[in-house]
Amino acid sequence: MKTYTVTFLPDNKTVSAARGKTLLEAAEAAGVTITSVCAGDGVCGKCRVLVKSGKVTAQANIFLDRREIQRGMALACQTSVEGDVVVEVPIETRIGGVPQLASEDAVRFSRPSELVGEKACFPHNPLCRKVFLDLPPPTITDCLSDKERVFREIRRVQPAPVMQMGLAVLRRLPGVLRDGEWKLTAMLGWRGETLEVVDMEAGDVSDRNFGVAVDIGTTTVVAHLVNLNTSETLSAKAKYNSQIPLGEDVIARIMCASNPLRREKLKELIVDDINDLVAALVQEAGIRLSDVTFILCAGNTTMIHLLLALDPSNIRREPYVPAVRSCPTVRASEVGISIHPRGLLSTLPCVASYVGGDVVADVLVSGMTRSPDLSLLIDLGTNGELVLGNNEWLVCCSASAGPAFEGGGIRCGMHATRGAIERINLAEGGRVVDRTVVDGGKPLGLCGSGLIDVVGELLRIGCIDRRGRYMPDRCGDRLRIGEADEPEFVLFPSEETALGRDIVLTESDIQNLIRSKGSVFMGAECLLDYVDGTFEDVRHVYIAGGFGSYLRIPRAIDIGLLPDLPLERFRFVGNGSVQGAKMALLSREALKYAEDHVADMMTYLELSTHHKYIDGYSSCLFLPHTDIEKFPSVMKGKA
Amino acid sequence: MKTYTVTFLPDNKTVSAARGKTLLEAAEAAGVTITSVCAGDGVCGKCRVLVKSGKVTAQANIFLDRREIQRGMALACQTSVEGDVVVEVPIETRIGGVPQLASEDAVRFSRPSELVGEKACFPHNPLCRKVFLDLPPPTITDCLSDKERVFREIRRVQPAPVMQMGLAVLRRLPGVLRDGEWKLTAMLGWRGETLEVVDMEAGDVSDRNFGVAVDIGTTTVVAHLVNLNTSETLSAKAKYNSQIPLGEDVIARIMCASNPLRREKLKELIVDDINDLVAALVQEAGIRLSDVTFILCAGNTTMIHLLLALDPSNIRREPYVPAVRSCPTVRASEVGISIHPRGLLSTLPCVASYVGGDVVADVLVSGMTRSPDLSLLIDLGTNGELVLGNNEWLVCCSASAGPAFEGGGIRCGMHATRGAIERINLAEGGRVVDRTVVDGGKPLGLCGSGLIDVVGELLRIGCIDRRGRYMPDRCGDRLRIGEADEPEFVLFPSEETALGRDIVLTESDIQNLIRSKGSVFMGAECLLDYVDGTFEDVRHVYIAGGFGSYLRIPRAIDIGLLPDLPLERFRFVGNGSVQGAKMALLSREALKYAEDHVADMMTYLELSTHHKYIDGYSSCLFLPHTDIEKFPSVMKGKA
Repeated sequence: MKTYTVTFLPDNKTVSAARGKTLLEAAEAAGVTITSVCAGDGVCGKCRVLVKSGKVTAQANIFLDRREIQRGMALACQTSVEGDVVVEVPIETRIGGVPQLASEDAVRFSRPSELVGEKACFPHNPLCRKVFLDLPPPTITDCLSDKERVFREIRRVQPAPVMQMGLAVLRRLPGVLRDGEWKLTAMLGWRGETLEVVDMEAGDVSDRNFGVAVDIGTTTVVAHLVNLNTSETLSAKAKYNSQIPLGEDVIARIMCASNPLRREKLKELIVDDINDLVAALVQEAGIRLSDVTFILCAGNTTMIHLLLALDPSNIRREPYVPAVRSCPTVRASEVGISIHPRGLLSTLPCVASYVGGDVVADVLVSGMTRSPDLSLLIDLGTNGELVLGNNEWLVCCSASAGPAFEGGGIRCGMHATRGAIERINLAEGGRVVDRTVVDGGKPLGLCGSGLIDVVGELLRIGCIDRRGRYMPDRCGDRLRIGEADEPEFVLFPSEETALGRDIVLTESDIQNLIRSKGSVFMGAECLLDYVDGTFEDVRHVYIAGGFGSYLRIPRAIDIGLLPDLPLERFRFVGNGSVQGAKMALLSREALKYAEDHVADMMTYLELSTHHKYIDGYSSCLFLPHTDIEKFPSVMKGKA
Repeated sequence: MKTYTVTFLPDNKTVSAARGKTLLEAAEAAGVTITSVCAGDGVCGKCRVLVKSGKVTAQANIFLDRREIQRGMALACQTSVEGDVVVEVPIETRIGGVPQLASEDAVRFSRPSELVGEKACFPHNPLCRKVFLDLPPPTITDCLSDKERVFREIRRVQPAPVMQMGLAVLRRLPGVLRDGEWKLTAMLGWRGETLEVVDMEAGDVSDRNFGVAVDIGTTTVVAHLVNLNTSETLSAKAKYNSQIPLGEDVIARIMCASNPLRREKLKELIVDDINDLVAALVQEAGIRLSDVTFILCAGNTTMIHLLLALDPSNIRREPYVPAVRSCPTVRASEVGISIHPRGLLSTLPCVASYVGGDVVADVLVSGMTRSPDLSLLIDLGTNGELVLGNNEWLVCCSASAGPAFEGGGIRCGMHATRGAIERINLAEGGRVVDRTVVDGGKPLGLCGSGLIDVVGELLRIGCIDRRGRYMPDRCGDRLRIGEADEPEFVLFPSEETALGRDIVLTESDIQNLIRSKGSVFMGAECLLDYVDGTFEDVRHVYIAGGFGSYLRIPRAIDIGLLPDLPLERFRFVGNGSVQGAKMALLSREALKYAEDHVADMMTYLELSTHHKYIDGYSSCLFLPHTDIEKFPSVMKGKA
């Protein structure tokens, strides 16, 4: 078979590809990452590339207009190699960049030490401790065995009903004890109710005890390095989840993972991501990999299944059953994660197929279970997870919001990375008054918070009606008819962008957002209905999730995403997932609390079969709602 | 370097050996087993071989007389190859034979089911159960995860505070559940307080659940195959411990194991022995290896260290500290033992360096801890282990009896295998009236019980005095002066033996036995002294250990090995080690009892530094004792 070379710019990576291979396949072989939501089915239109030279054959598609095709634009998955080719991968198609760390993820973030410690709700009791032991040497009257001697001393420092030591450590024990003249450091890790002597070392190295808390998001993976002795956060890193090319959302990943080989591949990708983050954290902090003794991951149910190579197939089949809710603590090396060779890995427990350990973490961090006040927690991501409750009960659900909040399904949507418009103000007629772009510079596209802002603004200034349709007489020349005869609003002409083309908002984009926000709002109504409550009863609304902190609450109320409550009732949790993982890492009591009082306590409401949800959903497909009386402040604003 | 061939008869195994290699090294390379107590140092005289042809060079030694050397006799470890050689390994030098199974080791031995079961002291609750589960399939209102669904059902059958499932099983779980239409068999193994779901299989295979109980003796390894559901013993097998060529007693093995490579080799040897026994048991019973779910080993502290490749060096260094008393339950495959791939291995806990899990097993089987009566348990082997106590307390010690009871250090001594004289009666003048030989046939040598019998008889008929010296005027022509000018008594002339030479008893042999029996008796006196008791207070004397059952109690009293108590107070425990292991295998409560109420409860008395032992030992070097009043029945018999 004829073989050609394919060169990818700007990486300048070249790979040989057989005739007929798609550019997406060639990119994968070259190690060049190209966004693909549909994993190559040609239906998402995200894998746009620019063919600079060479011969290709392209399938017809609805995502590119004539001018673009003339310029050389192509969908990588629909374009096959017919000669030596040079291809440029535009920035919006690349996802290899570093995602923005939410501000609360910054180094030395103070929350966990506020929540964990002497005077806080959870005592400082990390999942791994290093304890220096100065043992009395054996004598003829105290001739206890080496292991029992060590256990006796450990029990004086750390009571534990069940204590264990593996054969590997036991085999080294007599040497370590005598080499160190009965002075040694024991590394003690909790595996559920069991305290394991994970390792031991001669002398006092008890100060070298670090942990990593990880939030495994469907899109972004965030890791914090923590000094387990002092609770101090030393550094934080984030990267995009390398599984994205195999499926942008959880459903696509589950489908991919139904093939055991692909499941193993997905596991390797996330393990490599975690290893990359850990290596970077450790290097920045100037410590050794073997000083990291425990890693705790939080993530949605699917992400945790993929991390452990568990079959997630039944998560998407009615009645939506995960393989596991609460995973065992294992040796990190068993999964392939490189920390201390005998270091431990645990995960926060999940609640149900679509309410994962990330939401359990949010609840832990919010503190909503410690107050009799009714609270509502909303984690906005690809799915909108909602938790309602107080110190006595919790009820939760997952609203399939779709990818709009992550920039998916939106013509000029993107993740909240460099170039994303996160805030925007419009004047009458739709002129952009000001905008905030991640990392400054020219805009590339709209991330979730920017999208909500735009739609809220367009509604406020009357460019769209309550059904999300453009009002041509209010939009001036910014409105045009684009592809497929669809009205689209030009936010930025191409010369003002880093994209090389106009940044527009189509009516489909608005409809996608309306469906997303409607789903979340309806989920909240269902939870309240389930407990015979009303929004007025909700004293606190906690906003968690990737883009939560950038959200402008009033805009989100205007479009009907958030309930119309006084602004002081809203609080941002930030990345609750990584913060909750960190709390559990620093306090065994917090982990137990997450299991016994959060995960086990939550009643899960399956919305897909819930009559109230099915009946009421269409009422939410308005801005803010068909029943405007549910939004009195919005109604008053209009008046 | 010049290389020659060495052929070993009767195996007819040939191996090539470099010039200068010893015959012992060549035999090891050829896979021919040769007894060696001293591991090749030339000081035990056990590795006698017959050079049939070829050139060798032999070091001078004290073990062979001129006639023997002329016949071609040589010590394999002191003889090096100088040409092609043919060597015959006499039967008494071989240890590859199958040791005699004590009668209570026979198949379908009834004791464990008497001790374990509904009406017995320990309930039937095996360390591994197979439980058939018929799960309700998940529904939208009962959408518990697969793992939690299985755990919920298991908890209905088998309560357990802590339950765990490893990643490997978790990964297979969704498939097994659905392939078997929610009907499956869970294999549940106890690891201390934790119940592990060791494995699962679709359908009902709960009837295939077998365990193996093993007694790892320094000399003999005995294994029983047990149906864990019914408590029935299906078969029993024994073989010699293949470690013997690397050192006949525990001290020699510990010295050998101080080299990590040799330690690994010792581990492999015992693991191979266990694998051989398990394979033979399984084949005989017509079951599969994977039907064996749990293996429980009892043995002295050193044997258990060697099984797990733990460093035993400190066992023989003051203050005699083992690496571990109570070993963790591990996967059998981690040690190399072939049962079910995920099957578990546990060991009975030890008490101290020289009081091991075999003695804990003896105590368990004897039932001495369940009565307020004072009992004395004596386990006679290379070491004599003694336990004194009742239902409230236990005190124990180890008397270094030396190898005499196992036939070691005795000119014509041997293990209790084919050809061993186990009982003997002499008439006046020393004529043999009758004798019992293991497996019938002509005698090869004296095993422990035969040795005690001979010395008891010689004392009774006046051929030896109370110091163990021959009385020439009572011995007739059976007494002669042998090597090193030492008197020796001819029990059987060569023509009546299978040995090809006379079976004799030397004065040194008698002195060795006197030291052994004196050590055991003095140990018992020390224990009684420690608790201010006397032999009269002892209501039961339990005799355990390899050759215990063949012992004739009156002879053992005559020579002062056992205290002079009414015969009805003595009971034989038999191979308590394998029986105790079986009890623990069949009842988790028995294992817990062995740990909490036997091993943990025992006070260990170190005799080597105990003043009473040091002071009183020499009084025991008489037959039966310098203070004959301690043996009133013997005194009366003399009168």
